[in-house]
Amino acid sequence: MAYDMKLPDAIDLSHHLSEVARAREISPLKDLQQYLGRDDLLSIAGGLPHPDFFPFDKISATVYSKDVFPTDSPVTTLSLFSRIAQFFGKGRDEINIKRYAKQAGDLSLAESLQYGLSSGQPGLQGIIREIVHRIYKPAYRDWTILIHSGNTDGWGRAVMTLCDPGDVILACEWTYPSAMAASRPLGITAVSVAADEGGMRSDALLETLSSWDEKERGAPRPRVMYTIPVGQNPTGSTMSIERKKRIYDICVEYDIVIVEDDPYYFLQEGQYHLPQVRPVESKELSNDAFIASLVPSYVSIDYQGRVVRLDSFSKTVAPGCRLGWFTCNPLFRERFERQGETSVQAACGFSQALVAALLMKWGIEGYIRWLRGLRGQYRKRRDFCIDCFAESFELKASTVNGHQTTYDGYIRREESTYSKRWQENFMGTDDFFPVISFMPPTSGMFLWIQVNFQAHPSSSQSGKKDLELQLLKKFVDAGILVAPGSIFSADGYGDDSPGHLRLSFSNAELPVLKKAIGTMAAVLEKFFYGEDQL
Amino acid sequence: MAYDMKLPDAIDLSHHLSEVARAREISPLKDLQQYLGRDDLLSIAGGLPHPDFFPFDKISATVYSKDVFPTDSPVTTLSLFSRIAQFFGKGRDEINIKRYAKQAGDLSLAESLQYGLSSGQPGLQGIIREIVHRIYKPAYRDWTILIHSGNTDGWGRAVMTLCDPGDVILACEWTYPSAMAASRPLGITAVSVAADEGGMRSDALLETLSSWDEKERGAPRPRVMYTIPVGQNPTGSTMSIERKKRIYDICVEYDIVIVEDDPYYFLQEGQYHLPQVRPVESKELSNDAFIASLVPSYVSIDYQGRVVRLDSFSKTVAPGCRLGWFTCNPLFRERFERQGETSVQAACGFSQALVAALLMKWGIEGYIRWLRGLRGQYRKRRDFCIDCFAESFELKASTVNGHQTTYDGYIRREESTYSKRWQENFMGTDDFFPVISFMPPTSGMFLWIQVNFQAHPSSSQSGKKDLELQLLKKFVDAGILVAPGSIFSADGYGDDSPGHLRLSFSNAELPVLKKAIGTMAAVLEKFFYGEDQL
Repeated sequence: MAYDMKLPDAIDLSHHLSEVARAREISPLKDLQQYLGRDDLLSIAGGLPHPDFFPFDKISATVYSKDVFPTDSPVTTLSLFSRIAQFFGKGRDEINIKRYAKQAGDLSLAESLQYGLSSGQPGLQGIIREIVHRIYKPAYRDWTILIHSGNTDGWGRAVMTLCDPGDVILACEWTYPSAMAASRPLGITAVSVAADEGGMRSDALLETLSSWDEKERGAPRPRVMYTIPVGQNPTGSTMSIERKKRIYDICVEYDIVIVEDDPYYFLQEGQYHLPQVRPVESKELSNDAFIASLVPSYVSIDYQGRVVRLDSFSKTVAPGCRLGWFTCNPLFRERFERQGETSVQAACGFSQALVAALLMKWGIEGYIRWLRGLRGQYRKRRDFCIDCFAESFELKASTVNGHQTTYDGYIRREESTYSKRWQENFMGTDDFFPVISFMPPTSGMFLWIQVNFQAHPSSSQSGKKDLELQLLKKFVDAGILVAPGSIFSADGYGDDSPGHLRLSFSNAELPVLKKAIGTMAAVLEKFFYGEDQL
Repeated sequence: MAYDMKLPDAIDLSHHLSEVARAREISPLKDLQQYLGRDDLLSIAGGLPHPDFFPFDKISATVYSKDVFPTDSPVTTLSLFSRIAQFFGKGRDEINIKRYAKQAGDLSLAESLQYGLSSGQPGLQGIIREIVHRIYKPAYRDWTILIHSGNTDGWGRAVMTLCDPGDVILACEWTYPSAMAASRPLGITAVSVAADEGGMRSDALLETLSSWDEKERGAPRPRVMYTIPVGQNPTGSTMSIERKKRIYDICVEYDIVIVEDDPYYFLQEGQYHLPQVRPVESKELSNDAFIASLVPSYVSIDYQGRVVRLDSFSKTVAPGCRLGWFTCNPLFRERFERQGETSVQAACGFSQALVAALLMKWGIEGYIRWLRGLRGQYRKRRDFCIDCFAESFELKASTVNGHQTTYDGYIRREESTYSKRWQENFMGTDDFFPVISFMPPTSGMFLWIQVNFQAHPSSSQSGKKDLELQLLKKFVDAGILVAPGSIFSADGYGDDSPGHLRLSFSNAELPVLKKAIGTMAAVLEKFFYGEDQL
């Protein structure tokens, strides 16, 4: 693919490499591999088994067609169309990978299942470069990609390559806990930056950096930011390109490397509307219009090469692929590869071959069509989930911020099992309060629910974390499992935090989701107004 | 499976955990997964995509039958029998994995491609436990297994979990360089222990440990040993169980954790015999006799649980599986799992499912039958390789150590292109010297060739490493690629080292291997006796 020659090259960011990263050598045996590709050499150097000894002759897969999910399908996990098509074997493609390639460019098990370069298999690399070029459009010339084994592997390598023990990284106040669990044992802690409905706040970031006192903080000013800008885990927030630009400019000023962990990028479901005001869905978008409808990535404004973008096939194909990639500057890429070859060596060969075969079968435009269908399915699930809240709770719009509405959720008094007690105890208007509030997410898989613990009768005696755990226990007793907010705290959970729950609408069967939300309402009613409180 | 209740439990080795390992917490989200398996809970907690969204409906594979390789097949990479069988579709099995399981215990893509426990998929875990029980027979009661992403991942986790920066590990003087490349950047260096034809020498180990002077060495006495006891990389040596017992006892005395990296365990090819004295092959062994013919693993004598055994499917199935497992005590296992869940999370789901399906199709006894066939194939390759040396060089047995013969390789004078010059220059008996010497390996994939650099005319002016690189360059110019010995040095290459080449007989087509060895002879002749030297 032709790089755009007018774009600038990445600037030198080698001062960001950790001591460990600087100390890495090219794995000595891998060094020989530069010769292994030379057709003119008879190689008896590498410890490779003969591919005739692999027990796998051929691998085949039946896969969905790219358009199995209509972009405007009704609310089912699998559309009616595709369920019917299933009976007739339509809506399906076949892929086959044989031991030996028939012609150059064909995938083969002899290559895919052999030891290979840690950078990944050439066929898959080419497809990924096209995807980055077509969709993310990095703003510098010499961007590169490197295949990794999923974003957890990607972030793990980024931490080891960019951070030294004692360093502090920038993170949203609520963030993905496994990311913090990867860095914390290495002596790398997070400083929490305040966020709002649009993600990390640029003013809070500027304040944190400009007022950083190394002595007082006991650590040098942060050099690395961890961020999930789309469908943030756990809050579900999505950052606009305007906010990204403001944050990028601050990162240029303070020389920060941005690690953009973006697994939910294609699940940009758009605004939620209550059923009674939901607009009739517009006609199908084109691929171009779909791409234009997505908030651009940080790499699209990255003219210096200071963004390390992490992409994953976990949400667009399947988590078990353990496959994704870095988009970053060539210097970081080379160190990430060095680290990979002494840990996972390379992503799994079955996975690389099967995902490559799938993407070759669909083509790049076919893959984008698949993503459009997937976004449609997640939108239906998101809508269904919030609709269930509107049924089980009395929802009132509280604040409206731009297009984004926050809803307060009240217990439905008319249906309360405690109505008699209520009439006796909670009839004053002041006593009736919202038990939850949330903003319907515009992307991703998660609903982040603030619980109104300060209105709980025991809030003066019990801390918020205590109440959160009590509530969680009551949910489990009632047969539902929700993620407690406290585990998402970037730098430790204080009792000044409001208290939250994270609910996922991506996985449960829809009747289960509906039932679980109904149960939540019943448990919350009892928790706030039930026997315990009377 | 019933554990043997008479065996002792592992002793407490928690003092061996590194600072990083001690600091690891259970990944907070994974903590929730203890509830995820509870059938009575409706889970809306985890960020799992719905399995209806995975594009893969079904994966099928055509695989070899367990007995496709006769244990006593002729010298072909694929036996005549199986080549014929190929035409009729015999010698093949089919495996199928569907999106949803039809009955409990069936593999399914919905589970295999979903986020799962870092410990690996239950079906595969059960099979691996059976393999360990049947073949390796650990000598303590509470041994455990943990699936990893190949032995490089396994060793990487062992280093991070057991070693702190500044620690020194014990390694053979010649060892696998990628293992050292994983530990060195973390500030963990190796002390080289002398080895002979039977692997690491126990007297050298005892000397190293008993004379360790922390002040002089600038590091505490080593606590961890890295060893490849079977078909050692690069030397091809295999350690007897008697030697293992002596080394294990020293490790008990000095409180050393042994990391046994054993990917070549099933490639125990046995003694090499020159073609003219090669015994007629005995009739096929039974599975029991095959297992009894293998040198036992360190875990078979490990009554304290101080061995971390690393197994890999890279040589028994295919490297691209990126799949293997730890066998170790429960304390280490738990920390290895913690480290895994913040790096690779879990081994690839395609790989776990396909390997599990293969092993289920074959059964444990079928897998052992497959390993017998594989050993037969590698034995043929090993024999073919040494036979080529016997053709291209004049081989003379020099030293015989028990059953093991070392051969000196002389240039075949009668065929020399330099015969006239030889008559003029090298006619004295003293001037005619072996250019190489080697011991045919009894296991693995490698032949370790010592080159007689001290007999080279320039040996007084050039260092050994210099000569090694000069020779390597001449090989490349002549069209062959061999691994230089220097890259296998555990702790830096000195000019007091004799100088070696590592040749692999596992991968090249047999005519290529033959041609390459012929070329080696020609290059060595010119290197030692050719124009340059006259």
